Amino acid sequence: MAGNSFGTLFKLTTFGESHGEAIGGVIDGCPAGIPIDLEAIDLDMERRKPGQSAITTQRKESDKVKILSGIFEGKTTGTPIGFTIANTNQRSQDYSHIKDKFRPSHADYTYEKKYGHRDYRGGGRSSARETASRVVAGAIAKQVLKDIKIQAFVSSVGEININKPYQELDFSKTENNVVRCPDEPTAKKMISKIEEIKKSGDTIGGIVMCVIQNVPIGLGEPVFDKLHAQLGKAMLSINAVKGVEFGSGFCGTEMKGSEHNDLFNEDGSTKSNLSGGIQGGISNGMDIYFRVAFKPVATIMQKQNTLDADGNIVELQGKGRHDPCVVPRAVPIVEAMVALVLADFYLLNKISRR
Amino acid sequence: MAGNSFGTLFKLTTFGESHGEAIGGVIDGCPAGIPIDLEAIDLDMERRKPGQSAITTQRKESDKVKILSGIFEGKTTGTPIGFTIANTNQRSQDYSHIKDKFRPSHADYTYEKKYGHRDYRGGGRSSARETASRVVAGAIAKQVLKDIKIQAFVSSVGEININKPYQELDFSKTENNVVRCPDEPTAKKMISKIEEIKKSGDTIGGIVMCVIQNVPIGLGEPVFDKLHAQLGKAMLSINAVKGVEFGSGFCGTEMKGSEHNDLFNEDGSTKSNLSGGIQGGISNGMDIYFRVAFKPVATIMQKQNTLDADGNIVELQGKGRHDPCVVPRAVPIVEAMVALVLADFYLLNKISRR
Amino acid sequence: MAGNSFGTLFKLTTFGESHGEAIGGVIDGCPAGIPIDLEAIDLDMERRKPGQSAITTQRKESDKVKILSGIFEGKTTGTPIGFTIANTNQRSQDYSHIKDKFRPSHADYTYEKKYGHRDYRGGGRSSARETASRVVAGAIAKQVLKDIKIQAFVSSVGEININKPYQELDFSKTENNVVRCPDEPTAKKMISKIEEIKKSGDTIGGIVMCVIQNVPIGLGEPVFDKLHAQLGKAMLSINAVKGVEFGSGFCGTEMKGSEHNDLFNEDGSTKSNLSGGIQGGISNGMDIYFRVAFKPVATIMQKQNTLDADGNIVELQGKGRHDPCVVPRAVPIVEAMVALVLADFYLLNKISRR
Amino acid sequence: MAGNSFGTLFKLTTFGESHGEAIGGVIDGCPAGIPIDLEAIDLDMERRKPGQSAITTQRKESDKVKILSGIFEGKTTGTPIGFTIANTNQRSQDYSHIKDKFRPSHADYTYEKKYGHRDYRGGGRSSARETASRVVAGAIAKQVLKDIKIQAFVSSVGEININKPYQELDFSKTENNVVRCPDEPTAKKMISKIEEIKKSGDTIGGIVMCVIQNVPIGLGEPVFDKLHAQLGKAMLSINAVKGVEFGSGFCGTEMKGSEHNDLFNEDGSTKSNLSGGIQGGISNGMDIYFRVAFKPVATIMQKQNTLDADGNIVELQGKGRHDPCVVPRAVPIVEAMVALVLADFYLLNKISRR
Repeated sequence: MAGNSFGTLFKLTTFGESHGEAIGGVIDGCPAGIPIDLEAIDLDMERRKPGQSAITTQRKESDKVKILSGIFEGKTTGTPIGFTIANTNQRSQDYSHIKDKFRPSHADYTYEKKYGHRDYRGGGRSSARETASRVVAGAIAKQVLKDIKIQAFVSSVGEININKPYQELDFSKTENNVVRCPDEPTAKKMISKIEEIKKSGDTIGGIVMCVIQNVPIGLGEPVFDKLHAQLGKAMLSINAVKGVEFGSGFCGTEMKGSEHNDLFNEDGSTKSNLSGGIQGGISNGMDIYFRVAFKPVATIMQKQNTLDADGNIVELQGKGRHDPCVVPRAVPIVEAMVALVLADFYLLNKISRR
Repeated sequence: MAGNSFGTLFKLTTFGESHGEAIGGVIDGCPAGIPIDLEAIDLDMERRKPGQSAITTQRKESDKVKILSGIFEGKTTGTPIGFTIANTNQRSQDYSHIKDKFRPSHADYTYEKKYGHRDYRGGGRSSARETASRVVAGAIAKQVLKDIKIQAFVSSVGEININKPYQELDFSKTENNVVRCPDEPTAKKMISKIEEIKKSGDTIGGIVMCVIQNVPIGLGEPVFDKLHAQLGKAMLSINAVKGVEFGSGFCGTEMKGSEHNDLFNEDGSTKSNLSGGIQGGISNGMDIYFRVAFKPVATIMQKQNTLDADGNIVELQGKGRHDPCVVPRAVPIVEAMVALVLADFYLLNKISRR
Repeated sequence: MAGNSFGTLFKLTTFGESHGEAIGGVIDGCPAGIPIDLEAIDLDMERRKPGQSAITTQRKESDKVKILSGIFEGKTTGTPIGFTIANTNQRSQDYSHIKDKFRPSHADYTYEKKYGHRDYRGGGRSSARETASRVVAGAIAKQVLKDIKIQAFVSSVGEININKPYQELDFSKTENNVVRCPDEPTAKKMISKIEEIKKSGDTIGGIVMCVIQNVPIGLGEPVFDKLHAQLGKAMLSINAVKGVEFGSGFCGTEMKGSEHNDLFNEDGSTKSNLSGGIQGGISNGMDIYFRVAFKPVATIMQKQNTLDADGNIVELQGKGRHDPCVVPRAVPIVEAMVALVLADFYLLNKISRR
Repeated sequence: MAGNSFGTLFKLTTFGESHGEAIGGVIDGCPAGIPIDLEAIDLDMERRKPGQSAITTQRKESDKVKILSGIFEGKTTGTPIGFTIANTNQRSQDYSHIKDKFRPSHADYTYEKKYGHRDYRGGGRSSARETASRVVAGAIAKQVLKDIKIQAFVSSVGEININKPYQELDFSKTENNVVRCPDEPTAKKMISKIEEIKKSGDTIGGIVMCVIQNVPIGLGEPVFDKLHAQLGKAMLSINAVKGVEFGSGFCGTEMKGSEHNDLFNEDGSTKSNLSGGIQGGISNGMDIYFRVAFKPVATIMQKQNTLDADGNIVELQGKGRHDPCVVPRAVPIVEAMVALVLADFYLLNKISRR
């Protein structure tokens, strides 16, 4: 087991390099009898796919998912769901210039040192192309969880951010613009910013926020598999993520207990929700919300010095088709990983008591 | 498997409630032949233990570790290391007042709803007492990793923080003061702050930073078990942690790729280290550093309203002996969890190539 | 993870050497709210314990189980159940004669070669003393499964065997004699045989059969975790077991499909049961039955030549207090392992469909 | 995790139904840098494939393996190896007659009851077609283990068996005949027997024996993951297997310790090998050998009564193309499962000591 599986009961294993034959995965542990809407999978794949707008990479991939098993006559059978996504638009020649060079802040150097033998085409296994498999599995997990609403959106691009509590946002507007920010005026500024950055051959970071509503009480397992610990791992496993904070997060460190405690209402809900819907690692029925920090994409269209395989510092000119800012396409990936975590805990919780 | 195990190869399973007979754990997968210094375990336990200074809880626990197996004639045998720590200073009567009340921002309510049947004495399994077992295991893991230096320290208490890059700090001074801040002037301010907060019957949050040096290249497994994903999970599994950020973290989201990329030196090291020593989820040999956000302790010595088991809002007066600020005692816990993660990846990496 | 855990959801991890401080274990994943009869645990421990009759080892161990966590006010809390059993009657000096010798057909040589560093006192971790922890956990698992009847018994000692189908036996008589054979005349012969063998300083093998009744349909997971595959692993993990066969077993290899097929009744039960209650790896509601082969105990009270640590062949005289035949004491161990397997599949099956 | 993964470090996950789009699998944890001979995979697939001789099913499947990832420029990269095998010769109409009938001694009934929703075409997931994925993974595992010789062969068909110790057999002759029995005169009798059985529309059971040579000392993990426990599980997870015995097996139960003990030579090898190369669950460097019992195939070409979905007893006439005896095609499957077990323990053993 070398890290390519996620989950305990609802378990995804993925495989595939960006420029190999295909990528794909296997979901083991999905209960039988769940109706699966295949279009919902395609829809999430559309949201993740490259080339979807002027502010993402112009690489076009059809990203057609082929389900190979586990679904029969429209329902899950309880057996593993295998799927593949062909790599149809692999311009491996785009990468010939980096065959013997380690790109700065990429995984080229660490993979080479760890494994000795590396698929250098487009990042191979370290490419974010792998996340397509997560989106497929997440779209299926969402159908296991159907009453739970998982809503991610872009809350900042560089220094531009939504200056409102999430309660004032209308999540139905998230998909109305290409940057996936539900606040229209902010969205416009974000788009301009990304266009400007792109023009200069540079890239920029950003933050994705996620709000999960209608969560049943009791999800999460003590003590190592706390709900936010597993969500945090899920987020940090997404390419380019450098941080995650739940509820009051880093701001909460400056608060007093008397300010921070969420007092109860008679129905068990809480007046405030600085805990972010999780207490003792277990969901309490309130909204779960968290923020995920994405660093700027490492591949820039400017000249940089870098290291080659012979230990020389050489010049590198970014080529290929890359995202100037990763957060708009990260939104469905964040949601998919949340769905995988929740589906797993949802099943685990069915056996937490007699 | 309900979440009480951590690790794949170097695997810790813990058990025990705060007010039961004993807590303890089992480490499975520790290689044979490693000399174990039992005093080093006791030393880390001293650093975690309650009652160690005027700014921590005044609860006194001897916290004497009893190793039951797996170590023979001073060395590990390769068989599981079982250990217990007796609960000697359980004042269960301190908790009689909360038997039928759910304390705000505690796990009382969520455990009750999840399990139906709960050990209400002092938080039971949700108590941070469980982290004592982690410190034992971490102290053993450190001995597996002996060349790697894991240095955690308190970087902020409330709004008081060290305003320096970690490179300017002398980690040998961390243990010189009770708050575990290596910057003496800041340490003094932190201590005053905690004393003031304690006097008012309140609590305060803070941040622990951790710097790991001398890390071999190649630790971490793609794609779900990235080094920082697993470290992040480890941190978020510690009581009261609400966020974690690696390297440039949330600040990095405001940067451009051209600013953020870590350019190489000829020896494979990098000029800057915004990546925080991890690229593509794998250590690159540079310092790994990250920050961990702790919320203020929920138990305060002031009156609060809360919910009882019958659905009434009732008054609650904090009793017992609790920490006004958790970060000083969290330092060895952070280090222990880091050691567990690194020991696991260190072993996994031995089989990453032929 | 080095092999000291068993199960996926209902998971036992054990630790401890025969001559260390204590042995014990942790059960993680037991649902909350299950009433636990502690006397039932003691009862099964009595059945396993040494010194219980003239035909077992005369070593006396009190084998008192100490439950440290996970049970509160008579019920499971859903948190891990930790327990220890002190090693009170360790005559380590009994083993000084083998410190530098590898006993034939024991694990001394393989442990030494594998680990380099070995606890040589009484077999250390390889001792069957470890199975006491399994009996504790099995006794708890039985209480999770309360309607399922797990009945093991001795079906042969050497060449002496019960010559009847199990349907003709009265399992309520199994505990009536010290050899645990429900057929009285055969039991007598077995006891004489063991006494004779013991007198000659030798040992003898035997077979334990197990019949499980009242099993719900649907236990077992395809394809690698078939019910009999996991039961088979459980049996083969018990010391001295060399084989296992389910239903028609090895005899079935000589049969034709037309003879071997179990034809259905209208209620879904089958007229014959050569499948042994399992089809496609899943229980079908019929009796599950299987046979487990135990080799003769390797420690004999006769002189043998053996190898010492310096590579010399030297004389070895068996000492200590050992069983002339292991099967009577193996009966509760077989049952315990069955209970662990079934409890795990019972929980897993709760999430096999929507 | 619902049972479709095998192994801890060298881990295979399979998916696919007999009559779906494709079957396949993912191997996670194969070390980087291992040269892979793709023809060796095809060769083992030829040995397993249907239609290979007059005594197997006449169903023809091309069984062409498509490797999708994890191998680059002829070597493993350390990333997961994904592969698929298309289902090209699915005559689903062959199964329309059983859509609403549960075939006797098949998994139809148990899958239906467990999952509620079942792919009834040709057994779906319970079909032995799944074992093709195991053969692919096993062929790769063999290349990880290259010095270890894994030799399986048919030792009996019905009552016809090789009446010789395996030491007198020439394993290079196993592939010389269609039944895969290295003893030519016995092979002829077996072939005649199978032809006779086939003519009568019936089926017959048999035994596969496996001898593993050149095994390093130290494979296997105490206490639950003993080498033979894991091998036993592997065997029992193969369709139609009802029993397994190691070394002296069931015969050993009739022996005395003084007869059964394997005395040492000065080099640590043993004079006899009744232990079957494993002591205390760990390989001792001697030959590992074991026998695997296969029941007769349940699908016969004779009329049988069976149960339909409405609870009526109805007549069933076997159709389709099935094996009269499964053991000749089981030989490469047994070897594949052995290779998976050994590759896993081989990797685990690399970290058993400092």
